Amino acid sequence: MKRFVALALCIGVSASASAQVAPDPDDALKDDIVTAYRILVNEGILDSFGHVTARSNKDPNVFLMPQAMPPALVTKADILEVRVVDSQPVDPKGRRVNGERYIHGEIYKARLEVKAVIHSHSQAVIPLSLTPIKMKPVVAQAGFLPLETPNFEIREAREAGGRGMQVTDSNRGAALAKTLGPHPVVLMRGHGETVVGKSVKQSVVYAVYVDINAKMQTQALAVSPKIKSMNAPELFDEDEFDINRPWEHFRQKTLDPAAKAAIDRSQFGLTQTQEKR
Amino acid sequence: MKRFVALALCIGVSASASAQVAPDPDDALKDDIVTAYRILVNEGILDSFGHVTARSNKDPNVFLMPQAMPPALVTKADILEVRVVDSQPVDPKGRRVNGERYIHGEIYKARLEVKAVIHSHSQAVIPLSLTPIKMKPVVAQAGFLPLETPNFEIREAREAGGRGMQVTDSNRGAALAKTLGPHPVVLMRGHGETVVGKSVKQSVVYAVYVDINAKMQTQALAVSPKIKSMNAPELFDEDEFDINRPWEHFRQKTLDPAAKAAIDRSQFGLTQTQEKR
Amino acid sequence: MKRFVALALCIGVSASASAQVAPDPDDALKDDIVTAYRILVNEGILDSFGHVTARSNKDPNVFLMPQAMPPALVTKADILEVRVVDSQPVDPKGRRVNGERYIHGEIYKARLEVKAVIHSHSQAVIPLSLTPIKMKPVVAQAGFLPLETPNFEIREAREAGGRGMQVTDSNRGAALAKTLGPHPVVLMRGHGETVVGKSVKQSVVYAVYVDINAKMQTQALAVSPKIKSMNAPELFDEDEFDINRPWEHFRQKTLDPAAKAAIDRSQFGLTQTQEKR
Amino acid sequence: MKRFVALALCIGVSASASAQVAPDPDDALKDDIVTAYRILVNEGILDSFGHVTARSNKDPNVFLMPQAMPPALVTKADILEVRVVDSQPVDPKGRRVNGERYIHGEIYKARLEVKAVIHSHSQAVIPLSLTPIKMKPVVAQAGFLPLETPNFEIREAREAGGRGMQVTDSNRGAALAKTLGPHPVVLMRGHGETVVGKSVKQSVVYAVYVDINAKMQTQALAVSPKIKSMNAPELFDEDEFDINRPWEHFRQKTLDPAAKAAIDRSQFGLTQTQEKR
Repeated sequence: MKRFVALALCIGVSASASAQVAPDPDDALKDDIVTAYRILVNEGILDSFGHVTARSNKDPNVFLMPQAMPPALVTKADILEVRVVDSQPVDPKGRRVNGERYIHGEIYKARLEVKAVIHSHSQAVIPLSLTPIKMKPVVAQAGFLPLETPNFEIREAREAGGRGMQVTDSNRGAALAKTLGPHPVVLMRGHGETVVGKSVKQSVVYAVYVDINAKMQTQALAVSPKIKSMNAPELFDEDEFDINRPWEHFRQKTLDPAAKAAIDRSQFGLTQTQEKR
Repeated sequence: MKRFVALALCIGVSASASAQVAPDPDDALKDDIVTAYRILVNEGILDSFGHVTARSNKDPNVFLMPQAMPPALVTKADILEVRVVDSQPVDPKGRRVNGERYIHGEIYKARLEVKAVIHSHSQAVIPLSLTPIKMKPVVAQAGFLPLETPNFEIREAREAGGRGMQVTDSNRGAALAKTLGPHPVVLMRGHGETVVGKSVKQSVVYAVYVDINAKMQTQALAVSPKIKSMNAPELFDEDEFDINRPWEHFRQKTLDPAAKAAIDRSQFGLTQTQEKR
Repeated sequence: MKRFVALALCIGVSASASAQVAPDPDDALKDDIVTAYRILVNEGILDSFGHVTARSNKDPNVFLMPQAMPPALVTKADILEVRVVDSQPVDPKGRRVNGERYIHGEIYKARLEVKAVIHSHSQAVIPLSLTPIKMKPVVAQAGFLPLETPNFEIREAREAGGRGMQVTDSNRGAALAKTLGPHPVVLMRGHGETVVGKSVKQSVVYAVYVDINAKMQTQALAVSPKIKSMNAPELFDEDEFDINRPWEHFRQKTLDPAAKAAIDRSQFGLTQTQEKR
Repeated sequence: MKRFVALALCIGVSASASAQVAPDPDDALKDDIVTAYRILVNEGILDSFGHVTARSNKDPNVFLMPQAMPPALVTKADILEVRVVDSQPVDPKGRRVNGERYIHGEIYKARLEVKAVIHSHSQAVIPLSLTPIKMKPVVAQAGFLPLETPNFEIREAREAGGRGMQVTDSNRGAALAKTLGPHPVVLMRGHGETVVGKSVKQSVVYAVYVDINAKMQTQALAVSPKIKSMNAPELFDEDEFDINRPWEHFRQKTLDPAAKAAIDRSQFGLTQTQEKR
């Protein structure tokens, strides 16, 4: 599952090299989206399906989403602009974005502070989503979770006579956003999860720890029904979790040996960085 | 378990390069069989044993099956023609096909619409096959499953005084085909599974998702006996599941870096492709 | 865990290339021992500990065992001769063999037909060995197992006031051999397993399928206490299981790409080979 | 998760090559710390977080700890000296050490014989730490464990109104050291584990076997509540467990092919080495 990603090194060079065009305020954001895909494929969270999006820095009514394609192969050139209002591409250029883009659009509509959304079919959370047991925060690094994570039941959201498990229109997307509520994560029964954050980095780190938390809870429950989850004083305060360390760790795991050797080591351990653990 | 398969690049070149022979209508089918072996070994579904076959495009009474050999090493040159009527090779050329070829022959005989059959000893489904619990569809992408997947019990099919777990004659094959019924999958107690499809691609994607579905159900049941499976409106309509995306994903995972770099990216996101999720 | 083993290609060449020495009747056996180590490390059955031995072709009262060393690094030159009678090296050459060599010596003493012994600390069997539940044959390829596999309890074998879990003298070795009885496998509570066979190849294939069988039984039991194991007519007759196919499969997984490319493909599917499934 | 670590080859050369400086008594210790990081990342015990420290050979009131950074990238140059008395760096050089350094400082203060401390967020122990079930020694190589391993409950240690799961001050560190008591390991509910030893090597081998032991116990408990753990005569005597073999095995797994080929094989099987199993 782990792959070296030589491509990561050459990202973001070409645009600035050519002359006098105004810099794209979404350029770094697109880099983060591509890195997010690399990380989430490498960590086994994205496979054939799943998608990462970010709200545009240029226009909060637009989000950035790759065309429909295998997650492992996404590059900046694949990223299109999509309208929050109706989840349709601003200019499709003859390309499609994913049929479940309504997940993203409706969450951006309902949660103005959300800057990034990840939808995945993670095998770590699906078993728990099938049971009547709620995911609870059990692992220290998952202190961003609420005391109970909601589990979206598509049957309650489907139109009369409706079919399928997918969130393929605005109504279903809005129902998912409602179940998500103010939380960073919503499980989706038999389907996977959707994670949101204030940045692509934050949502990626959250997605990885949602996976770990679900795995730990599931494995503990197979041993004993009486497991102890974290209580309110054990959850994170606003911005308490410095996500830079795990983001860097996950990112470095995707690098090829040459890119690894080129890591800027002077950044480590600086007293001014906010490193909490 | 993941291996780069450089061989995949050179497949299908030699035949057309030599002069004026009529093209083999089964040529592309044989390519798909070889790719299917690569994918299923890479995904951990085929190991020392297991086989993939396809009904010939030239004669519906014939199916294509490799000679008895390690799944990881199958090439087009290893593929023989086998008669549906009695599961014997048309022209063995001094080679044997697998002793469980009757699985394939009897299913092709009973199900005229079936174009491909996969038999595997997958470790993801065996635990469930040992229990009285039926596999149910629990994962969105496994919506091709029936509400309950049959589990073949060889004891009921064995001739009086018969021995063994293997399907090594036409009677046992016919009994398996009967248990399979109209479904795409039949588990085999303590043995593995058999998956059928309208194409090699479809059967491969189904086989991978049968594995994932069985794993998710097994892990959920270890936590709680009350798990929720998909209901009828959540299952796929005919051809609702576009298997091209996961087929491409699984195929690309088997490629070496050079073959990966050569992937035709212009195909992604085209509006005319049927991409449902 | 999977490693390419380029060394395997050059084994067995040097001795015959030099002149006029009588061929060593144990030469091919030593090759098999080295290959067995490669396979069992690659399959995760040997780690820091564990050992593979074979009865000498030259003298049934002697067995071949590597000096005490990491399993992953064993070569032919590391293999010493050890006496069956007391499990002491014939000529230690200043080297030690493993402290648990008594496992091997006492089994060779008690079971004259046994030609190879594998002792491992396999994590697949240990959980079952801790429970009161006996390992039963549940997977078709484990039809060499008895209806119940014995589980060695060192507490019953320890001398008065004795300590430890290891089989470090002849008394403990003899007790283990007694618990093994006429079977091919004995689990060892909290410790691992010992597998015997008529050849190195057979014992290796048995060891891998003991692992798979234990895993499948354990995972099934986590879902339901009512699992169905194989009955007598489903077990193998004498020599019914052709172990060449899985041996070749496991061996090929240890090869580097060049060695893989050099595999003799003309051997596949020959009608004269005994290929049962 | 397994990575080749070419860096390991060049460690420890540069200092002695330059002229006439007194050798650093902590030089070999720092090598061991770096190797420990390589091993524990490779074995999946350290990920984004976790740290290895050692008590200085120069001053027992000082311990060696890397600056705050990704565990996979630690080199000797990253290691700082930290005071046992207050867990503050002797000379921070503008760098920070980890916020949980109090774990280490307080244990070195309470346990004078302890020479190395490892704190990790191991996913193998967390499930058990969430349940009311104590970790017990169940695997032969974990005979260094007590009959019950303590499980640290931060709620009992937190100051009134205190928050969080982390051990980020001396009070919490002292509470952890108290729960650890005279043992080599303390689990930490929902957080991970802390392992101590008489050397870096010992603590590393202990940490790996704590993981294996926890996994085996957890998997066995999923099958049956009646599992048998080791009793007092089955635990290790002082120094009974020769940790050199597993240390070497784990170390060699981190080496690249060239470094592997350069392993000094003349050390294997020497009669004078204390090889117990």
